[in-house]
Formats: sequence, structure tokens, C-alpha cells
Amino acid sequence: MKNKKGLAILMRTRMKTSTDPSRLPLLPLTGKVNQMLTDAKGNAFDTSVPQAAAEEAQGPTKLNPPADSTSYRDFDAVRESMHSAISLNKAEVLDVVLDDFSEGYFSLSFENRRKLLITLAQVYDLNRAQVRDLIKQYLGLELPGGNASESSTVDEEAMLSCFYRVERNLRQVLKPAYEVLFERLNNRPGGLKFLSIFRADVLSILAEENIASLRALDSYLKEKLNTWLSPAALELHQITWDDPASLLEKIVAYEAVHPISNLLDLKRRLGVGRRCFGYLHPAIRGEPLIFIEVALLRNVAQTIQEVLWDTPPIPESEATCALFYSISSTQPGLAGINLGKFLIKRVIKLVKREMPHISTFATISPIPGYMQWLLSKLASQSILAEVENMSPSSSSGSVSTFRENILEPEEEKLLLSCSEESFPGKSGMDVMLKLLTSTKFEWISSPELLSALKPPLMRLCARYLLEEKKRGKALDSVANFHLQNGAMIERINWMADRSEKGLRQSGGIMVNYIYRVERIDECAHSYFSTGHIHASNDIRRYTLGV
Amino acid sequence: MKNKKGLAILMRTRMKTSTDPSRLPLLPLTGKVNQMLTDAKGNAFDTSVPQAAAEEAQGPTKLNPPADSTSYRDFDAVRESMHSAISLNKAEVLDVVLDDFSEGYFSLSFENRRKLLITLAQVYDLNRAQVRDLIKQYLGLELPGGNASESSTVDEEAMLSCFYRVERNLRQVLKPAYEVLFERLNNRPGGLKFLSIFRADVLSILAEENIASLRALDSYLKEKLNTWLSPAALELHQITWDDPASLLEKIVAYEAVHPISNLLDLKRRLGVGRRCFGYLHPAIRGEPLIFIEVALLRNVAQTIQEVLWDTPPIPESEATCALFYSISSTQPGLAGINLGKFLIKRVIKLVKREMPHISTFATISPIPGYMQWLLSKLASQSILAEVENMSPSSSSGSVSTFRENILEPEEEKLLLSCSEESFPGKSGMDVMLKLLTSTKFEWISSPELLSALKPPLMRLCARYLLEEKKRGKALDSVANFHLQNGAMIERINWMADRSEKGLRQSGGIMVNYIYRVERIDECAHSYFSTGHIHASNDIRRYTLGV
Repeated sequence: MKNKKGLAILMRTRMKTSTDPSRLPLLPLTGKVNQMLTDAKGNAFDTSVPQAAAEEAQGPTKLNPPADSTSYRDFDAVRESMHSAISLNKAEVLDVVLDDFSEGYFSLSFENRRKLLITLAQVYDLNRAQVRDLIKQYLGLELPGGNASESSTVDEEAMLSCFYRVERNLRQVLKPAYEVLFERLNNRPGGLKFLSIFRADVLSILAEENIASLRALDSYLKEKLNTWLSPAALELHQITWDDPASLLEKIVAYEAVHPISNLLDLKRRLGVGRRCFGYLHPAIRGEPLIFIEVALLRNVAQTIQEVLWDTPPIPESEATCALFYSISSTQPGLAGINLGKFLIKRVIKLVKREMPHISTFATISPIPGYMQWLLSKLASQSILAEVENMSPSSSSGSVSTFRENILEPEEEKLLLSCSEESFPGKSGMDVMLKLLTSTKFEWISSPELLSALKPPLMRLCARYLLEEKKRGKALDSVANFHLQNGAMIERINWMADRSEKGLRQSGGIMVNYIYRVERIDECAHSYFSTGHIHASNDIRRYTLGV
Repeated sequence: MKNKKGLAILMRTRMKTSTDPSRLPLLPLTGKVNQMLTDAKGNAFDTSVPQAAAEEAQGPTKLNPPADSTSYRDFDAVRESMHSAISLNKAEVLDVVLDDFSEGYFSLSFENRRKLLITLAQVYDLNRAQVRDLIKQYLGLELPGGNASESSTVDEEAMLSCFYRVERNLRQVLKPAYEVLFERLNNRPGGLKFLSIFRADVLSILAEENIASLRALDSYLKEKLNTWLSPAALELHQITWDDPASLLEKIVAYEAVHPISNLLDLKRRLGVGRRCFGYLHPAIRGEPLIFIEVALLRNVAQTIQEVLWDTPPIPESEATCALFYSISSTQPGLAGINLGKFLIKRVIKLVKREMPHISTFATISPIPGYMQWLLSKLASQSILAEVENMSPSSSSGSVSTFRENILEPEEEKLLLSCSEESFPGKSGMDVMLKLLTSTKFEWISSPELLSALKPPLMRLCARYLLEEKKRGKALDSVANFHLQNGAMIERINWMADRSEKGLRQSGGIMVNYIYRVERIDECAHSYFSTGHIHASNDIRRYTLGV
């Protein structure tokens, strides 16, 4: 029980963060501002793709500045230390300079960080005059085997040497000046963590304004982070009640989907019938980059409620299914770097080895983009229908080509009949739109409305998951995440998540993805190359109108 | 004593490897050839620069091929799997392909590895036609702020966007095709280790023939390895008797300077009065990349014998000096990547914290290049002298300009007088050359010769260390290693290493470098920027002729 005190602190933290979940302060790095860490809160989604979602679904990370604004360090001083950290030579870049820069950065207001980042992107870019010079040199070189077809191999080697030299120089000058800063920071303890926060700031600026230079910096930094975070260097760690409170605290802070309500709940999350695994990186100590929560069950759960039990429904030895019910990324700054894929593969391998009686690996996942897609579809169709009704003579032909009644005739009939009094509308789609956008979700307390909405919502959900694509990939970010990892779509479940968030995102529907161990690589490959979505016959039935 | 069995195996290994120390087999990676691992032997130098030395001093690593040559896998099959590993798309590169390639690689004969590496360097190079196309595109872009000086910031942003796009593409096409192979291997368990062996092969080919394409591949791979091996991701581990035998076995295998002769010796190396620290990388498990051995002493040792005691001369609490007496790199393939610098800095920090009574951090180091330099100096001067003597009339003036009597008159006199009978010679330098190249080192058993040789050998050694440079840096690789890490040259010690190797390398002289904690950064910086060598007055005296 030596952890009791730590957990008490932890619980206080939890309550603090709960008061205003929209405030997502940046994670500071250094001791000075360490107390802020307890406020830290990352992105988390049930069995979701934290990276893609962080880019698409999440709002920008907000800075939680020090209460006293006089404690901001002078912008120019930080800019100066940034300059030193980049321009001093190798032996001069004393650790002090880099420390000074990262501490200074954290002390800046969000507005000043923005200013600094844009300065970095624009002023410490590459030297285009040098690039041009080298490019001209390069064009002057003659490719061997061209005109001088009779040249000996020795000549050829000599000519190639010139190419290698200029190409190496070209690669060098094509590196923006800020690459030095990234490399130097990465080589220092705490540097990778700093860079991850740094990039989270960049992403939150880019979410609000499209600045070409900053976007270029981001894509450069992302590539760097990708190469530094080799999965082979990540340690798979089973998180248990024996872990230090400082690590468990992170699980509490970053697990935003199924909040941990009390001590017992946290302990249960790590106890009998459940598992929790995280990826630790040696340069970011005591904090998993990503973690996944697993429940051991007899069957693939159809609702999230089945997973959030207080006492294990069955002994572990009777479980045949490992259900991934939550995957959370702790580093918004690592958005776009798919660590989840490797984590899932390794967890499956480990669970299979330790518990051979488990043969099914599945998820119970949200469908974060479903309602957004459906509502915009319904809204645009309603408008088109109105236009058509208002001017039945003029250019009705051209409007019609875009029109589509996404409801089946029986579905429309049933909807119109049972909503006449409470939600009168001109058409089934109009009624559906009104029902689904009613702020209090009145429809879920009416058995008639529920049974009228279920058929179209389930059918359209299957269509959304199986057929709606963006650049050849599943439109839904969570679907895309699991499909690219090699999963199949198994089943959609009605009223699987009745929470407000669940209703808002997907009308309460959740989906089970299944990882069939022997087919993971094959599924991932065909999805990658042709966009083909592997799905059960069960779910395909909805879209075939059977 | 659970380690007893492991250690018995380990001792057998030691004996096996001792029989033929010139055979340095490559380290294989996979289970199939795992038994070869016990033969593994890397480069090791007392307090040396393993990297630079591996490039300069060591001969090429030799392949130890399977005894049965029919077990070689077909070259074409391995080449095919290499092609697949590079050209298949992301989702297709199944682990199987990469496994197949690395296993196949290990099964190849050295000649076939050479063929494969050259193929990789030449065939999987970059696409120069693509580079040319992009370069022409790039030259077509107009720099903002040039002619169109009145353009708005919006236009400027748009123009810069074009630059960013083409520059990103240019960076992309300037990557040789083999980069994909490196990245994919690095992402897999065991991949980093494989790449290190792979590069060791490349280096041993380059040591014998200068192939431009392979040199370009090497410099590319070295840069990659450098970014993957961020010091922040390395774990400093104190190696103790409690470590697994599989790890201790590596210490035995790679420590080539002061061979571990028996169980007691190994245990002592890790016991009271000594420390051993290694850098572990999460992707290369159970094997330090580099390790350093430390002795806790009252004073800075003057000979290596003082360090290799059987029982601690003093209790640890009375020690004031931590003496680094051996630093060994285990990965010839990481040559040129300075991990030692970070290791030394971290070890100093750790020792200072744990043992505040220790205030001196020093080394007892070899001077591997001294004799080579001195003998070539003596030889060339002897030839010049002969030429001059043979034709005293013709062009003697021009010869004289290169002539230098590197001996002081008294030194020469003493040498000539005491060597008359055994080693008659025309001049002091001639005598000295004969003495030092006598295969049996007769001079160390003659008190007269010893006392005649000591003054010139010590004086010239100081000159060699302090004044002989290559591209502005110390000519001696070990000196350069410690000086760039921020050490100072403290003292040279006569008859400090009487082993054959010690006599052959440096006439038995060893040097103490000192790391003055508060001046490390300053020393490193001035050495880096001006080549200035920090040294004690004691050693400077030799070169001032005082």
C-alpha cells in the first residue's frame, strides 16, 4: 500500500482536470514548471486512431500559461537562445544553451510561442542561394555511359564520385537550418519529449491557420520523429498496480474515454480479467507513448457497458476473447506516427503466448465520423429537396442528378408515421435530421422513434463504414486505423454506447473490428494497395439491401 | 552460483577465441547461426578511441564462413530477397521478407557479400533522371522578393509553397533506393544489430579497395546510424556480477586489451575497487555497444600493472581517483559514431554523485601511433643521411632542407657509446632505429640501453602527442579521442606497459589524460575550434627542451 499517497494525489489531479476538460494545457518539460504536469491531459479515444484523430477531430491544444503574466520570459531572450542553439558550433553547444532554450520556450505565452515557431520556420529555413549553386554544378556533371560510351570503368568511377559528392552536398544544403536544433535537442535527455510538445504547438497553430513555412517545418519534424521512434527501440510494458504512481498517474491523465472514477476503478483496470500495455521509449522515461486496454471475455462484447464491469464476469481461464476497448496516445505531438499498429501486433503475440486459450482478438470501437457524415448528407438533401419543391419548373433536371433519397421507402414511411406529432417534417430525411439534431436526444427515450430509426441508422452506418472513402481509404479515421493495421469489420451494434458522446458521434452505434491473426498481413496489404475493406457477411448484408 | 554453468561455457569460448586472435569473425544475427556468436570478437583498445582506431588501426574484419561451403545459400536467391525487401510496398514488406534477407545475407561467403553490397550500392542508388527533372523545375521557380518586389505577402506565401513542395520532393529523390532497406531493417527487432554487422562488412571491403559507390553507401548508412543512436535513448548500465552470463560473456569476448584469464579475474573486474559501465540500446538487447572499465585509486596510476591488481590496494572510501583503464567498442560497424564521449561524461557524473570523495578523473591510455610515427621518421632520416654521405658534393643543399637530427647531441652521444658492441650504427638515429625494430626488444633487458633510450623516447613522445597533427587535430587517434571529449594531457609514463603490444606501439610508454570536470566543455571547444591541445606544464617541459 506504499502507493496510497501517490494515488491520493492522483485522484485530486483527476478531479482537477475534470472540472474543465476543454482546457488541454501543453506539457512542460523542465523541473521549474513541473507542477503543471499534473494538469496534463492528452488525446484519447476508445480503440481509436489517436494520431489521425488528433489531426482531424481534436481542436487545437490550448496553452495553460502561468497565472502571473510577468513571469513570461522576454521573447527576445528566448529567440536569442534559439539562435545560439542553432548557430553555435558542435563543441560550443553547451548543454546550458539547449536547457536555456527549452526552459525559455515553456515560459512563453502561446502568442509568443507562435511568433517564435514562425520565426524558426521562416528565418532558419534552407539557404536557397546555396541550393541553386549546387544545382547548377549538378547539371554540369555528365552522366557516365552517355556520350563518352567508350570510357573505361575507371573513368566511370571517377565521374560517379563527382555525383556522389555533389549529391551529398545537395542533401546537406536541402536540410533547413532548424534541423540542427531538432537533432541537438533529440540528443539530450528530455529532448524528445520537448520536441513532441513543440510539435503539438505547431499542430495547434496549423489547425487554425495555414502557414506554408510552418507546414513545411511540421512535415520535416514529423519525418524526423518517425525515424527516431523506431518500433524496435520501444519497450512493450505491461502496466500493473505495481508500477510507480508517477506512471499510473499518466494513465489516469490520458485515459479520457472511460474516465477513472476512483481508486477501485483504477485498480480494476489493471487487475484480474483485464490487461493494460504501453509502449515506453528510453528517451521519454516513466510515461508510455501510447497504451491499450484489454478485457478478457467469453465473447466479443456488443456494448461498452459489457466491458466496464466492476467484478470480472468470468475467470480468466475461461476467456476466449481479448477485447481492445481503449487505445490512448499520450503525445499529441506524435500525431501521424502510427505506433498503435506495432503495439496491437505485439500485444496479440504476447497474449497468445501467455494465454493460449484466447483465440479471438477484437475491438469495441466508436465510429467518430458517422453522425457528421450522415447529418451533412441529410442537410444537403433537404436543401436540394426544398429547392426542387420551390421551383419545380426551372432546371429541376440538374438538381435531381445530385438528389438521392438515402432512405428506403418503408423506412421513410415508418419515420413519418411515428414522428407526426413531435417532429413534423416535409420528408423522412427532414424528420431524421430534426430528430438526430435535437439537443436532448429525445428519440432515445421513445420506443417508437427508436424502432423507426434503428433500420436506417444501422443500414447507413454499414454503408458509411464499408463504402464511404477519402482518397481510396475509409472515411472514418478509426476504421482507417484498424483496417490499415490488418483488421476486418465484423459487426455493428445498436445502442452500444448511450453516453452523450456516443450518441453525438455515431447515434450510439459501436463497431467490432476483428484481428484474425493469420490474415493480418494479407488484409493490411490488400487494403493498402486496393482500398479493399474486409468485412463479415453479416455487415455486408445491410448494404446489399437484404 | 547459478551462473557457474554459463561461465564455464564462457571460459571455453575465451580459450577458443584465444587460439587465433587474428580471426575476427562477423557477428551473425539470427538463431540459426547463433552458435557462431560465441566466437564473436570485436575491437578493443585500452582507453582508446574504438571508432577512429577501428577505421585506421585495425585490419579488416574477416568473415568466418561456415565450414561446409555447400551450406552457402544461393547468391541469386539472397539478391532476390534484397530486391523484394526494397521494392515491395509498405504493407507488403512482410516480416518474412526481411527475415529471409538477413538470414540469407549471413549465409553468404565473404566474396558473395562483397558482390551483394556492391550491387546494392550501384543498382539501388538514386534515380538521377528524376533528380534532373526536379532540379530543372526548381530553377524555374522564382524567389519571392526578387523581381516581383511589390508582390503581397499572400503571393509570397504561395510562391514559397512551391519551393517547399519541390524541395521536399528533391530531398525525397536524393535518397538512394537502399535507404528503404535501412529504414525497414531498423524498424525490426534485431535490425539495428544487423545493420551494424552489415556496415562492418562494408568497412572491411573499403579498407582494401576504394569503391566510390560503396563509400557513398557507407557515408549514408553512417549518418543514419548516427541519428538512430541518439545518446538520450542509450541506457547507462553498471555491469556487475549479478548480470546475466549472456551479457558478461560479451565483456569477456570484446575486452581484448587486458584479457580475462579466469573466473576470478572476471569477478574482480566487476567487484570491489572497480566499476564497469556500458551503454545499452533498446534495439540491441543484452549487449553493451561500448563499455568502460574504471579502477578506484588513491593516485593516478603510472603503469598499467598498478591497475591490474588482484586485491584492491585501498578501501573504496579512501579512493580519490577514478581511473579509466579500458574502453571497448563492441560494434565494429559503428565506427565513426562517437558514443564514448557521452559515456565518459555520464560515468563521471554518476561516479561523482555516488562517491563524492572522488575528485580526479583520469585515464591510463596507450599511444597507438607513436612508434609508427617515430620509426618512419627515423627511417627516412637515415636514408637522407646515407644519400648525403654517398654523394657529398651533388645537390646536398636540397637534401639538407629535409634533414633533421631528431636527437639532441647528448642523446646521440650516449646512444652511440652504449650500443657500439651490440648494435653498431652510423648515427644515433640509425642505432635507435635498429634497437627499436629488433624483434626481441633486446633493449628492455639492458639497463644501459634503457637509460640511453629513455630521454629521447620520452621527449619525442611528448612532441608526438603535443605537436604532430593531421588536419589540425592530434595525429594519435586515442589522443584525438580524449582531447575532443574535453580531456587534457597530464603526464607520460616510462615503462608503463611492458607487454609486447605496448612495446611495439609506444616503446612501453603510456599517457594519463585528465578530465577536469569544470573545464571539459571549455577544453573540448578550444580543441574543436583551434586545435589547441591542453596539457600540463610537466609534459610541456619535454618539448621546450628544459
